[in-house]
Amino acid sequence: MFEAQFQSFDETADPSQGAPRLAALREALREKGLDGFLLPRADEHQNEYLPPAAERLAWLTGFTGSFGFVIVLTEKAALFVDGRYTVQARTQVDTAAFTPVNVSDMTPSDWLKDAGKEGQRIGYDPKLHTLDGFERFKKAATSAGLSLVALDRNPVDDLWADRPAPPHAAVTLHDEKFAGETAQAKLARVQAELSKSKADALLVTDAHCLAWAFNIRGGDVKHTPLPLGFAIIPAKGRPTVFLDGRKLSNAVRDALSETTEIAEPRDLETALGTLGVEGATVRLDASASAVAFARALEAAGAKLQRGADPIAKLKAVKNACELNGARVAHLRDAAALARFLHWLDEEAPKGEIDEIVCAEALETFRRETGRLKDVSFDSISAAGPNAALPHYRVTRATNRKLTPGFYLIDSGAQYEDGTTDVTRTVVIGEASPELRDRFTRVLKGHIAIATAVFPKGVSGAQLDAFARRFLWDVGTDFEHGTGHGVGSYLSVHEGPQRISKLGTTTLEPGMILSNEPGYYKEGHYGIRTENLIVVEKRDIPGAEREMRGFETITLAPIDRRAIEIALLTGDERKWLDLYHARVVEEVGPLLDEEVRAWLESACAPL
Amino acid sequence: MFEAQFQSFDETADPSQGAPRLAALREALREKGLDGFLLPRADEHQNEYLPPAAERLAWLTGFTGSFGFVIVLTEKAALFVDGRYTVQARTQVDTAAFTPVNVSDMTPSDWLKDAGKEGQRIGYDPKLHTLDGFERFKKAATSAGLSLVALDRNPVDDLWADRPAPPHAAVTLHDEKFAGETAQAKLARVQAELSKSKADALLVTDAHCLAWAFNIRGGDVKHTPLPLGFAIIPAKGRPTVFLDGRKLSNAVRDALSETTEIAEPRDLETALGTLGVEGATVRLDASASAVAFARALEAAGAKLQRGADPIAKLKAVKNACELNGARVAHLRDAAALARFLHWLDEEAPKGEIDEIVCAEALETFRRETGRLKDVSFDSISAAGPNAALPHYRVTRATNRKLTPGFYLIDSGAQYEDGTTDVTRTVVIGEASPELRDRFTRVLKGHIAIATAVFPKGVSGAQLDAFARRFLWDVGTDFEHGTGHGVGSYLSVHEGPQRISKLGTTTLEPGMILSNEPGYYKEGHYGIRTENLIVVEKRDIPGAEREMRGFETITLAPIDRRAIEIALLTGDERKWLDLYHARVVEEVGPLLDEEVRAWLESACAPL
Repeated sequence: MFEAQFQSFDETADPSQGAPRLAALREALREKGLDGFLLPRADEHQNEYLPPAAERLAWLTGFTGSFGFVIVLTEKAALFVDGRYTVQARTQVDTAAFTPVNVSDMTPSDWLKDAGKEGQRIGYDPKLHTLDGFERFKKAATSAGLSLVALDRNPVDDLWADRPAPPHAAVTLHDEKFAGETAQAKLARVQAELSKSKADALLVTDAHCLAWAFNIRGGDVKHTPLPLGFAIIPAKGRPTVFLDGRKLSNAVRDALSETTEIAEPRDLETALGTLGVEGATVRLDASASAVAFARALEAAGAKLQRGADPIAKLKAVKNACELNGARVAHLRDAAALARFLHWLDEEAPKGEIDEIVCAEALETFRRETGRLKDVSFDSISAAGPNAALPHYRVTRATNRKLTPGFYLIDSGAQYEDGTTDVTRTVVIGEASPELRDRFTRVLKGHIAIATAVFPKGVSGAQLDAFARRFLWDVGTDFEHGTGHGVGSYLSVHEGPQRISKLGTTTLEPGMILSNEPGYYKEGHYGIRTENLIVVEKRDIPGAEREMRGFETITLAPIDRRAIEIALLTGDERKWLDLYHARVVEEVGPLLDEEVRAWLESACAPL
Repeated sequence: MFEAQFQSFDETADPSQGAPRLAALREALREKGLDGFLLPRADEHQNEYLPPAAERLAWLTGFTGSFGFVIVLTEKAALFVDGRYTVQARTQVDTAAFTPVNVSDMTPSDWLKDAGKEGQRIGYDPKLHTLDGFERFKKAATSAGLSLVALDRNPVDDLWADRPAPPHAAVTLHDEKFAGETAQAKLARVQAELSKSKADALLVTDAHCLAWAFNIRGGDVKHTPLPLGFAIIPAKGRPTVFLDGRKLSNAVRDALSETTEIAEPRDLETALGTLGVEGATVRLDASASAVAFARALEAAGAKLQRGADPIAKLKAVKNACELNGARVAHLRDAAALARFLHWLDEEAPKGEIDEIVCAEALETFRRETGRLKDVSFDSISAAGPNAALPHYRVTRATNRKLTPGFYLIDSGAQYEDGTTDVTRTVVIGEASPELRDRFTRVLKGHIAIATAVFPKGVSGAQLDAFARRFLWDVGTDFEHGTGHGVGSYLSVHEGPQRISKLGTTTLEPGMILSNEPGYYKEGHYGIRTENLIVVEKRDIPGAEREMRGFETITLAPIDRRAIEIALLTGDERKWLDLYHARVVEEVGPLLDEEVRAWLESACAPL
């Protein structure tokens, strides 16, 4: 009945390969006169989703999480993961070969400092380490008397017999009716920023920034319509994009040529050399660009200007067209979600459906909109204790039937007019008092963010605790940030805007963020309630400052059966009732009679 | 009837001297072949309160605020102040000579970069600039083609004919019954921190850290019992304190000798040289220690280890004895404050009393406790529009009668067992609906901090917005942080603990902070409600984390007549009633019948 085209539920991890592959790698290192190797989960764009050819860490260790770092030494090897992945690492990896380490207990550079022995030579692939990241290692290595050796070729690639070819999906133009601004106009704004910071050129290595600035999209990685490539944007004159020519149709090539030169990625090094010969000051984001590029520029004689890629901040602030697109996309998505939640309410009590069929069903409803380009990430479809892992991904091995208690589904869609990301936690059967208490505290945090009003200049770091206070009151918390930025038919995890204690970027009107407090009880259940929100100007009578607030654009019922009404204030209750009324009013007309009736009842006032 | 012994209300600023003194300084610079001079308001300890001999900036410009920075060039001179002082700077300074600049509009280093001309030589006194601060200037100067010239002698000192002598108030021992820990035990903890960070020695230039580590106090500056001096604490072996011998009685000298060598401040340079000869790694707080010391160490061959002075964090966490002392001191202070507030309620409606007599009255009531060592800062006694300046200090020129509306008094005391800091805003006559609205929103913010419960690891930056949300809701805010750290018979403004968006220090049990949201309407009125709070462990049934909360230790009525009860939640109202009941119960027994009766009525349930 349902099927998933954009996600698979197969377990790709195979712990048994870890030990022999590690042995082979050590042998290869020995032959090169090396005592160790640093391997981050990364490609040369520092993407979140890697093309299969760049999944070296997964190939070596079996670990498939989105953050990982391996250090191989002659006697020891460690796999660093973060709090999201400590459990997953232990099941996917041969821990006799790779010791899993939580980075919040010890950073890779500190570990290297402790475990390395004076005089050892540690290899690394300079295309996979950011300049900042490399420098942290360099410092640690120096203080421990180790030397770091840049390798021209990644030793894993020589061992990985069936390593896939790099992707070359077709590049498409991102229509101005979605982008709301021509590439020419965007590039002029980028160039103005470069002039302001007195840079002669910008090196763009982040494919999201490339996609935004040139109004192009692609299909080189899963779930994000990225065209992998690079660009050099001079402060004056025509930029150059470096894109594999096989990805460009004549029509796309012609359109791109209006604003930019087009070259092959292999030409990038020569172009960096030319910037060097010119003695250019080149802006480069040291936290996101590979040390290989910084080194090539400096070796050629260019001057590095380290600083954020100005495109990141321009991209984060959506224009009116992108915001309207986001609203339309969210309405379409909400209709699919309503169909899913209705189906879930019908089926779950029968006790037969499982996490995979739920993920398949939701993807199917979304596909039936006729506009789905991809899911924006692998759905987190999690029953019972699986939901206690905030980043759980269901596989055939972990798949669970939905049983009484909470079921959590965190999912999103890529439409050309917008990217969505929504989480709902649904009661099956009856929720116990504890479940209702925690669900309601998460909801109160969600409402506190949704209703926050704050002056111009305030950052997400200042708001984050609003989402936590009600959980703190009972001695609990959640380990992740409250919200991340979201792109416009681009990455569902976009910076620099975020709501987290680390989110020091000022929240500007037009930024899209998630609002997703949660609560996780290991071995038992997980709760998360997530809507996307847009920063907007807020007129307040008598205000003495320019004020901001949030518009919520995700439209889906929040499970009334899980709420402990006595814990809500009058204002919170009013917010929820108004939100639900809006869901019925806006989404209702897109549904058939049966689903609409269900939606009306799910959205009835408390 | 009343008198002030510890504060004066004379206007020391004299704008008329600015122009001739500036001209004389320029002439002196020209003779030395210099084109400019950098003059921060600072002494060599980076104190908040300077000894009169270090008030060079005030002497030159007339400006007496606690933050200031002057740059003199041949054609221009600028006085940099922060938002607290922009109004004050314009009244105290000849703005034809010194252009006042708000540092949030332009930093001194940016200004120098713009205004300086290539090839110019700018002098500075390396004892007055922190290493961090100097390096920011160095960078700006380099990029503008200027050179910075370190001067052995401050040129202001040569012009300042009647410059006071450096202070040499007697050093006293801070009794163990107040300190709760011997100097020996403290020094062992400091030495353990040094070993942990692999430093051979610590250079202590902050007199607060000196006072804490060696359990001594002094009287070299106003309002903080500081013995100005330095120390070198080696990771192993006996430390050396550098204190003017005239300040040491035989008894103090004997007691100090048990744990430390004693030398003259002029011997410091030789001692730094010795560390250099030994090739020692010396820890130095680059944000608080002068570049002169860093340079002397490096020139002699020592290795700098830049990092926070470990004493600062040890000092911030008060022990049980210091906390008990603080509670006792606050109770004593509360009785004086109750007498004052009762007197104020009797007198203010008559329309005759003014800001100065109020400050004198409160100081007198405090002195009548028999235990007052000093006020902890010049009282902010502010009627009507004067209170809109958060850091107002009353002088004979600005003194106002108390008239209907709000009167604000922010004051504190130095007792040997603890330092206090409290602000109350009091209604005279009737408060208008606007006044009541704002007062209540400030109070709601105050209660939100007082009742906050949070997990171990949370910093003040995460809590700061709790104090602002209710003001944000109506489009307002306040410009200062919500709270600062407070010392134990030491500085009333102590770091690193703070509640502010910049307060990234984790809040640890035992830290004392202020909780002081406010609201200021320029030209009209100001509101602030301030109590001191102590971070404490908090047991919550079923808690999954180690939790923290605050104990409020300031005990004084919050003006019930200014509260818009309808704006309070049930929980907020309950908090206030319980707080007031505690004030009556604890402070009442210390008062005579008349004042106690007044207190009971001021503290009646809402």
